[in-house]
Amino acid sequence: MPMNPHNDDLPMNIESLRARYLQGNLTPAQLVERIAARTAGDDPHRVWIRALTRDEMMRYAEALAQRDPATLPLYGVPFAIKDNIDLAGVPTTAGCPAYAYTPARSAPVVERLIAAGAIPVGKTNLDQFATGLSGQRSPYGACRNALDPEYASGGSSSGSAVAVALGLAAFSLGTDTAGSGRVPAAFHGLVGLKPTKGVLSTQGVVPACRSLDCVSIFAHSANDAQRVFECARGVTQGDPYARAWQPSGRERATLGGVRFGVPRATQLNFYGDASYAAAFDVALAKLRAAGAELVEIDFEPFLATARLLYEGPFVAERLAAIRPFFEAQPEALHAVTREILGGAVRWSAADAFAALDRLASLRMESERVWPQIDALVTPTSPTTSTIAELEADPIGVNARFGYYTNFVNLLDLSALAVPAGECAAGPHAGKPFGITFVARSHDDAYLLDLARAWLGERERPVSPPMQDGSQATVQASSQNETGNAEA
Amino acid sequence: MPMNPHNDDLPMNIESLRARYLQGNLTPAQLVERIAARTAGDDPHRVWIRALTRDEMMRYAEALAQRDPATLPLYGVPFAIKDNIDLAGVPTTAGCPAYAYTPARSAPVVERLIAAGAIPVGKTNLDQFATGLSGQRSPYGACRNALDPEYASGGSSSGSAVAVALGLAAFSLGTDTAGSGRVPAAFHGLVGLKPTKGVLSTQGVVPACRSLDCVSIFAHSANDAQRVFECARGVTQGDPYARAWQPSGRERATLGGVRFGVPRATQLNFYGDASYAAAFDVALAKLRAAGAELVEIDFEPFLATARLLYEGPFVAERLAAIRPFFEAQPEALHAVTREILGGAVRWSAADAFAALDRLASLRMESERVWPQIDALVTPTSPTTSTIAELEADPIGVNARFGYYTNFVNLLDLSALAVPAGECAAGPHAGKPFGITFVARSHDDAYLLDLARAWLGERERPVSPPMQDGSQATVQASSQNETGNAEA
Repeated sequence: MPMNPHNDDLPMNIESLRARYLQGNLTPAQLVERIAARTAGDDPHRVWIRALTRDEMMRYAEALAQRDPATLPLYGVPFAIKDNIDLAGVPTTAGCPAYAYTPARSAPVVERLIAAGAIPVGKTNLDQFATGLSGQRSPYGACRNALDPEYASGGSSSGSAVAVALGLAAFSLGTDTAGSGRVPAAFHGLVGLKPTKGVLSTQGVVPACRSLDCVSIFAHSANDAQRVFECARGVTQGDPYARAWQPSGRERATLGGVRFGVPRATQLNFYGDASYAAAFDVALAKLRAAGAELVEIDFEPFLATARLLYEGPFVAERLAAIRPFFEAQPEALHAVTREILGGAVRWSAADAFAALDRLASLRMESERVWPQIDALVTPTSPTTSTIAELEADPIGVNARFGYYTNFVNLLDLSALAVPAGECAAGPHAGKPFGITFVARSHDDAYLLDLARAWLGERERPVSPPMQDGSQATVQASSQNETGNAEA
Repeated sequence: MPMNPHNDDLPMNIESLRARYLQGNLTPAQLVERIAARTAGDDPHRVWIRALTRDEMMRYAEALAQRDPATLPLYGVPFAIKDNIDLAGVPTTAGCPAYAYTPARSAPVVERLIAAGAIPVGKTNLDQFATGLSGQRSPYGACRNALDPEYASGGSSSGSAVAVALGLAAFSLGTDTAGSGRVPAAFHGLVGLKPTKGVLSTQGVVPACRSLDCVSIFAHSANDAQRVFECARGVTQGDPYARAWQPSGRERATLGGVRFGVPRATQLNFYGDASYAAAFDVALAKLRAAGAELVEIDFEPFLATARLLYEGPFVAERLAAIRPFFEAQPEALHAVTREILGGAVRWSAADAFAALDRLASLRMESERVWPQIDALVTPTSPTTSTIAELEADPIGVNARFGYYTNFVNLLDLSALAVPAGECAAGPHAGKPFGITFVARSHDDAYLLDLARAWLGERERPVSPPMQDGSQATVQASSQNETGNAEA
C-alpha cells in the first residue's frame, strides 16, 4: 500500500502523526503545509470535489496552537470528508452541482472530530447521491483507483478511500447505506468501519435511505478507525435516527476460538473471478491457522435481504430523500443515477409495506445464525473491475459489488472491512483483496478487536468516548511509529 | 353496567368465577350450560359471527375435568375471540365471508389461554378486516351497543366488547391497530388493554397493518385484564414481530403524585360533544382529587402522528396484507372497506418512505414529553354516535373516534382504556365515558396499576407468567366476589 507516495517523510496515519506531535517533532501548521503540497496541482484520480486551500486548513491548525496534543485524541490529524457530509462554509454537492448548498454549520459528526483536534482537508468525490458502489457515477469525473488508475475505486465513498490510500489524509469519513464504506476500502487495502446504525449521527448528511444511512470511517488500521469512532460518536439532539452506543461488552484479544460463520460453498459468489475466489480461500486458511473456527451457515436469509434492497422498493427511499429536487430538475442528475431513481416510481406504497414485512421475516430468519457464531466473515466484494468494464455495463457490474454488503444495514448489523492481502494469481493478480467481519449492532468494538488480531496490531489503550460538544481527555500513549495495516 | 342481564346468578368476571371454582360451587360443565343458555336464540346485537355450540364448548370443559382449579389461572373462564384470530376448527372470516378459511391450529395467543384453562365461546363480529372504529362495517350485521342498541358499539373489535358487556364471556380478545381495542371498551364501560406491540403474538391473526397490529384484551376490571395478559403473553417462534416483554418495573399503588400529561385545551377535541367534554373534566377533577398532578403538554406531535396514520400512506399497509384477495375479488368487500383500501393505490413507495421518515421525526418529538410525565391521560374517544349518524357519514364519523387512539401503535406506546363513569348531561347523558392511560412500551403493568387505583380495585397477587406451552401454577387467592369495575 502506498501510504506515502510523496516526496516527504510524513507517514500518513493517526498513530504515527500522534507520536510525532507528542514528541514535538511536528506542528499542525507544518502538517498543513505538507498536505497543501500533496494536494497542489492536478487531481488525476478525481479525489476531490473541493480540496481545502492551504489558508482554509491553516485556520484549523491555528486553532490548535494553544492546545496540548496529549489532551486532544485527534490533535492535528488531517481528514477528508465525503461531499454528502456538511463542512461549514464549504459547499455540499452530493456529487450533483445543481443540488449544491453551502452549510453554515458542519455536520455534528464533523464538529466532534474537529473538536477532537482533527483538521479537514477537503470534500471528496462520490457516486452521485451516494447511489452506487463503483465510484464512476460523478459529474466531477470517474474516481480512479489509487493503486491502478485503470481500476474502479469503488464507491459511493470513492474519493474518501482514495484520499487515504494516496496519503492525502490520515482518515476519512464516508457514508454507507448498502456497502459504500466497505467496497472502496476493499479496493484500496484499507480498513472500512460501517458502525452500528445511528451511533454516528447522520444529521448534516445528504440522505440516501434515511432509515439505513450510516457515516463510515476509512483508515489504515483498526486502531486508527477505533480512535475516530470513539471521537465521532454521540447522540445528537434533533436526529430522529440517533441511537446511543450500547457496547456489547464482548472482547477478544486473539482469533483463537472465534467462531466465524462462512456462507455455504454454493452461496458464495465471485462472478467467475478466480483471483478473488482464491484470495478468499487464503483468508479462510489464515483464520483457521490462527485458531478460529469456521462454521458453515445458511447465507440465504442474508442474500434474500440483499436482493430486497437491490431489486425491491427500497430504492424509493432514495427517491423520497430528494424528490422535490428530482422532480424539478431530473436533467441535472447523472444519467445512471437518474435511471435508477426514476425507476422507483414503479413501486407502490403497498409494495413498500410488503417489502418491510418481508424484511421483518428475513431479519428473524437471519438471526438464527447468531447463537452459533461470533461473527460472519465474507469477501467484502465478490470481484473487482476495470473502469472500462464498468463503463460498458454501469448498473450490472456495479450490482455485483454489493453481493456481500447490501444486507448489513437492513438487518441492523455492524461491519468492518479489513485488508486481506493481494490476489496471488488470476485476472486481478497483485490487486488488493478484502474481507468483512459482520456482527450484530453495538458489536463495533468486538469487530475492531477481531480486526486488530487479524492485522497483527498492538492493542492500544481505549480512550474515553468524547462527550457531546466537549473535548474529552485521552491518555497519551507511546505507540510505535509504524502503521502495521499491511497484513 | 349490566354485568349480568340474564336470568341466572352467575356473575361474569374472572375473579368471581374463580372464587366459585375454588370454593367448589361451580364446574366448567355447569358454566358451559349457562353460557349456552345465554347465547341461545337470537343475536339482536350481532355479537357473533360464529357462536360455539354447547357441545363444542363442552369439549373444552371436559378437558378440565381432572385439573385442579388452583393450578390453572383461567380455569373454566369463558372468553370470546374476535373473528380475525384463529380458533382451531372454526372458520376465521375477518368479517368477510369470501375470505374465510378454517385453521387447523389456534393462534398461539389463543392456545396459551386455553392452556391456562380458558374456554372459548365464539368468534365475534368486527369491522371487516379490522378496518374501522365503529363496528358498523360488517356483512354479518352492524354490531349494536350492549347498553343502547341505537348506539354504535365501537370497533373494530365490536363483538368482543359487546360479548363481555352482555355477560356472554368473562373476557375477550380483540385486536388494536389504531384504537380497535379501546374505542369499544369506552362505549361499553369496559377495561381495554392495548399491550406493548409484539408482546402478545399476532401469529394466527389476519393482519391489518402487520407492523402495528396488537392483540388486545377486554375485561371488567384491571385485575381481570392483568390475569389474561399474564397468561396470553410469550414469544412465539416464527413470529417476526414478537418481542419479549421487558417490564419497566415501575409500580404505583395509588394515584397520589402521579404526573399525568394532559393535552392543552386547544388540542382537546370533542367534535362539539358537550357530554364528553364535561365528562373528561369530571375525570380530570377526580384524578386531581386523588392526588395526581396534571401536566399540560404539547399534544401536537401525537396528533400529527394520528393524522399520518389516518390521512397518509399507512392505509397501504392494510392493502398489502390482503392484496391478492383484494385484487381478485374486490366486490367481496364491504363497500366502505373497499373504498378505504382501494384508496391506498394512490400512494407510491416514495410516499410510504417519506411517511416513515416523518414518523421517525414525530416519534422523536413526542418522546420529549416522557421526562415530564408518568403517563398521558386522554378521553378514549372524543365522542360517540348513534348508528343512524354513522350510516349517514360512515367514514367521517368513524374517523372522529380515533382522535386520541391512532397515534399509539405508531409511537410504540402501551395504552389502557378504563371506564370513567357516565355522561352527566348533554346529548349523550347516561352513556358511558372512558379515559385512556398511555405510557411507553413495556409499561403495561404500570398502566394496570394506575387503572387499579382509578377503579378502586384491591391489589391481587401477581401470578407467574405462563411459560410457552406449559401451564404455570398460580397462587390461589381469596378474592372478593364482587367485580368493582363500575367506578
